[in-house]
Amino acid sequence: MTDNSERDARHNDRMARKKAVVDEKIAAADTARGVLLVNTGNGKGKSSAGFGLVARALGHGMKVGVVQFIKGRSDTGEEAFFRRQPQVQWHVMGDGFTWETQDRARDVASAEAAWAVAKQLLTDPAIGLVVLDELNIALKYGYLDVATVVADLLARPVDQHVVVTGRAAPPELVAAADTVTEMGLTKHAFAAGIQAMAGMEF
Amino acid sequence: MTDNSERDARHNDRMARKKAVVDEKIAAADTARGVLLVNTGNGKGKSSAGFGLVARALGHGMKVGVVQFIKGRSDTGEEAFFRRQPQVQWHVMGDGFTWETQDRARDVASAEAAWAVAKQLLTDPAIGLVVLDELNIALKYGYLDVATVVADLLARPVDQHVVVTGRAAPPELVAAADTVTEMGLTKHAFAAGIQAMAGMEF
Repeated sequence: MTDNSERDARHNDRMARKKAVVDEKIAAADTARGVLLVNTGNGKGKSSAGFGLVARALGHGMKVGVVQFIKGRSDTGEEAFFRRQPQVQWHVMGDGFTWETQDRARDVASAEAAWAVAKQLLTDPAIGLVVLDELNIALKYGYLDVATVVADLLARPVDQHVVVTGRAAPPELVAAADTVTEMGLTKHAFAAGIQAMAGMEF
Repeated sequence: MTDNSERDARHNDRMARKKAVVDEKIAAADTARGVLLVNTGNGKGKSSAGFGLVARALGHGMKVGVVQFIKGRSDTGEEAFFRRQPQVQWHVMGDGFTWETQDRARDVASAEAAWAVAKQLLTDPAIGLVVLDELNIALKYGYLDVATVVADLLARPVDQHVVVTGRAAPPELVAAADTVTEMGLTKHAFAAGIQAMAGMEF
């Protein structure tokens, strides 16, 4: 055999073994139900991964509800785009990052109003996916009671998916979730002096 | 003062200091140009964060090109949804995960054809965002030359954003990137026996 064909044969053997392992795992995963996904950590991608799942769910014909617990800025591309989609309900409930408002009492009231809207989505079996964007921030600052939030999440319709985003997900939420991703910051353009760019950061 | 108002005052002081730090950092980031973003790691969210940025870019009126280097399955929600958007070019170039095809020579040819399509997007200044989904897998298995790929990425139009996804991003690509997120797997529904659900995993 030539070097190339030996390399190809070794590669193909390795991949055949890998396929057997993957196939076995797929056969073992036989439960079908809605998933509770948490995207946390200090890196970029927590909210955008949630918005990617909005597109994914829309492609399957689902209805989607989004509640933004923090209103960062009013000109985001995701809001402009998804508000044009008839299957999407988009609710911006927060007043801004908490260091922008500097008014704890107002932040608590905003978070409670946002949770009331979230709860309506979480009790509606017609909604296939609910995105609770930056909910973790409201929990981190104690604006909402984590036990109540987790209980409401677990009481949702059995087929409904939920995505919760934001830094510092509380341990009670991580324990209740099916899938948890920690988005780690390896590096960020902002630190290199690049400003927040349309289409990338908002 | 009551306990509540003391707590609120301390909170507001802390947030005022935080705002000063954040405002200073924002003022220092004054470069405007396209960003090269890499989403890697073993956790969920690498591709979906890329697809969220597609929605974000569309909301800003940009044109978007997507190249999928691995064809996982043909019924994904993101492909169905974004193919309906006139501003999006969607190219599925790969033949499948490499342990599915078990044919290294065919995988190399697929990756080279995919890179030719990617290069067209990377030389077109009318495209605001390019998503190179699972490119890291093609690099990891040596199907493409990493030095060529990095050189082509760095030679793109100055305002163009690029997102590269997939496990095991090579160090040369990480070095060239502006923003890198390591999606860490804290837990995954699949390990708990939940099958890949529409709207969540595809």
